[in-house]
Amino acid sequence: MEFTKRDLPKKSENLSDWYNKIILMAELADYGPAKGTMIYRPYGFAIWELIQKEMDKLIKERGVDNAYFPLFIPESLLKKEEAHVEGFSPELAIVTIGGGEELAEKLVVRPTSETIMYDAYSRWIHSWRDLPLMINQWNNVVRWEKRTYLFLRTTEFLWQEGHTAHATHKESWEMVLWAMQMYQKVYRELFAMPGYVGKKSESEKFAGADITLTFESLMPEGKALQSCTSHDLGQNFSKTFDISFLNSEGKSENVWQTSWGLSTRSIGGLIMMHGDDAGLVLPPRLAPIQVVILPIKSEGKILASCEELENILKDNGIRANIDNSDNETIGFRINKWELKGVPIRIEIGAKEIEQDIITLVRRDNGEKSNFSRKEVETKVAQFLQHIQDNLYQKAEKFLQENTQDAENYDDFKKILSNKRGFISAFWCESEDCEKRIKEETKATTRCLPLETKEQNGKCIYCGKAAKYKWFFGQAY
Amino acid sequence: MEFTKRDLPKKSENLSDWYNKIILMAELADYGPAKGTMIYRPYGFAIWELIQKEMDKLIKERGVDNAYFPLFIPESLLKKEEAHVEGFSPELAIVTIGGGEELAEKLVVRPTSETIMYDAYSRWIHSWRDLPLMINQWNNVVRWEKRTYLFLRTTEFLWQEGHTAHATHKESWEMVLWAMQMYQKVYRELFAMPGYVGKKSESEKFAGADITLTFESLMPEGKALQSCTSHDLGQNFSKTFDISFLNSEGKSENVWQTSWGLSTRSIGGLIMMHGDDAGLVLPPRLAPIQVVILPIKSEGKILASCEELENILKDNGIRANIDNSDNETIGFRINKWELKGVPIRIEIGAKEIEQDIITLVRRDNGEKSNFSRKEVETKVAQFLQHIQDNLYQKAEKFLQENTQDAENYDDFKKILSNKRGFISAFWCESEDCEKRIKEETKATTRCLPLETKEQNGKCIYCGKAAKYKWFFGQAY
Repeated sequence: MEFTKRDLPKKSENLSDWYNKIILMAELADYGPAKGTMIYRPYGFAIWELIQKEMDKLIKERGVDNAYFPLFIPESLLKKEEAHVEGFSPELAIVTIGGGEELAEKLVVRPTSETIMYDAYSRWIHSWRDLPLMINQWNNVVRWEKRTYLFLRTTEFLWQEGHTAHATHKESWEMVLWAMQMYQKVYRELFAMPGYVGKKSESEKFAGADITLTFESLMPEGKALQSCTSHDLGQNFSKTFDISFLNSEGKSENVWQTSWGLSTRSIGGLIMMHGDDAGLVLPPRLAPIQVVILPIKSEGKILASCEELENILKDNGIRANIDNSDNETIGFRINKWELKGVPIRIEIGAKEIEQDIITLVRRDNGEKSNFSRKEVETKVAQFLQHIQDNLYQKAEKFLQENTQDAENYDDFKKILSNKRGFISAFWCESEDCEKRIKEETKATTRCLPLETKEQNGKCIYCGKAAKYKWFFGQAY
Repeated sequence: MEFTKRDLPKKSENLSDWYNKIILMAELADYGPAKGTMIYRPYGFAIWELIQKEMDKLIKERGVDNAYFPLFIPESLLKKEEAHVEGFSPELAIVTIGGGEELAEKLVVRPTSETIMYDAYSRWIHSWRDLPLMINQWNNVVRWEKRTYLFLRTTEFLWQEGHTAHATHKESWEMVLWAMQMYQKVYRELFAMPGYVGKKSESEKFAGADITLTFESLMPEGKALQSCTSHDLGQNFSKTFDISFLNSEGKSENVWQTSWGLSTRSIGGLIMMHGDDAGLVLPPRLAPIQVVILPIKSEGKILASCEELENILKDNGIRANIDNSDNETIGFRINKWELKGVPIRIEIGAKEIEQDIITLVRRDNGEKSNFSRKEVETKVAQFLQHIQDNLYQKAEKFLQENTQDAENYDDFKKILSNKRGFISAFWCESEDCEKRIKEETKATTRCLPLETKEQNGKCIYCGKAAKYKWFFGQAY
């Protein structure tokens, strides 16, 4: 540790200072030497590995196979789908020199893989028997950024991108929904984060999609974070890339496609959501270390007891670690592991040995408990579950408290100037109103919640007829 | 399947035609649109996932943590270590445009990560308490190639790269050896491939290393394949990048470093080594599908029996799949799965149901067995082990039979013009002899086997004193 706790700004006073500092102090990440890039340090990368492990299982269970497509996309290929290239061209990194020579055709470093994958899909798909074709990739993508905001906005990031092709729109739409439900489950159960699922507006949807579904969560300063997306690509790419199949009657049709992705950006949301003035607070399911065991003194009996405990917990599938840094005081070590957000701290000293008990402290609420050593596996497992649940409930409460209705534009602006959050308001769905609201308030349309009922409303901006209440919010 | 078996050239007649064709036919990989690139299709990528899973476990057990460093390396950073940049500069892909603008400093797409990682190591390492620092990455790297040789030579490939820093050379050298032993274990137990471990010559070692250890295997046409490497970097990078620590006496020292990598190239070796005229032959531990179950007819009773069998095998941790493609004859399906190299085929028809038996066919030697249905889990597990062992033994026998001593240069050339293989011969270690031998015979020094004893020999080329017998061979 290069820092002491004093160096950490208070989260409650300055979220973005706290955020930038805690990531460095907890050794989650560091800045890369090229502008906009970041280094995922082991402690931060371990969180991504926990996310990957769970999601990879869910994705495979759905029958989606992993594969890997090239990093470099010939410029001409990227340009094939008009809306797509228009959306991405300002963000591209381009290779112009290879093997010491100027290239005849420039290569784009993938910002996403639709074009390079669908070029192959058109060669691989011939008959209805080849469908559905369902492929996922875990890889790195590049979208140019001038200024790094660790995890949240970086030139290169890691993600998974799923790309499926189906015989019917019914089937592809089910896939779009499945992906979003899978993400919601992962957010709820692993991240302990609630959020709203809905459709993006025309101007905010993915370049090349018919419909984009998004999962939007709410950060402590009342800003929305787009956490992952699932796209109904319709037949847009399959027409451009000529991905067709002979149906069972021998007629040629274009396939229906989906793509969906969740990135390391999600870790930024996780950090902001749960952390506090003392540092990170990691939900147990995404904590690389779930229990830290601290010997109060470096004594033989105490150390032996700690090691025995570590083994018991590990045998029970709990990620436990002893910290016996003999050059650090117990107070320093307590602060260090609080800062790193480890869900449970167990302290063992002379008293614990003598009375054959455990002293356990929860990171999420600071509660201290004592119980008999014999109960340790059960108790620790229970506390981990309680912490996971408690974090979710706190976040859910925060989301509810910060979701408000705005009947008119004045209300709308008042909410934004107060504590922000999600604002539910009628909007006529014209791009003009959307643009003006954004210019005047910095709030954008976040999503139209799935299953929203049609009503007879009036657009809060222009007063014209509006059928649906959309979620608005200021976003990262 | 777009191909029929007739399209496959005989491996015994034309290895490289067979190799290029079988990879496409078995759907392991495909060509990417940019020169030199390839697509890892699901069946091929699943082999890499099996390799990753096992290696990741071994690497973590050694205390090495995973992390992720940026893809883009500023040119000035790459140029810091002289020998390193000299070795890599002809192979670089360079980004000159980002976010629509010409970049002030060009960015190199990583060909390997020494420079970008060690720049960070110099910031992270301060005291002996920070050591050892041991980090591994699973990522993509780019080294320019004009012509793709699927898996074996591609502009972009996937690998792991381990990078460790230690307080003493004794400790870093142990790490270099550990990595090589880990690779050897993985090759032996998963790939069913033997090979020779040894030191590379000065001209063949890694750009920036003091010593490079290599694992060299022998392909069917008698050519050597460098399968992975482990480098003793000494203090070369730590001096250039100023990675120093205060030792326990408070004195500043430079760290001792290692790096080691194994790539998807290894899958190319696997394909070549074990395949035969009928297609791939995958060793069970790297087979995405270990057992294919073929119903002889599409009848209710037979299908139910196949499904029951699939579940039993899956419950026993065996990767089993039914193929009930009703538009393909049984003969076609048998050929297809032979071509895909699935280790065991189980056929179930009326006879099998009636007699309550299993008919099992081994891919490695074509042997057919019948046994009672009750024994199926045990028998299948045994056969998988036998196949794994048999493939290793065949490869080991081939390696032994094709490792020969050459007493003089005439012998040496005779062996090369005959069946090639590894040639053990005295070499004086002068770069001049090495270069001339290469020019005249296309054979290069492959390695000096570890623990080779010093002798009083004469260089087969110049006749001057030579202490050691080196392995020579023609390589990919």
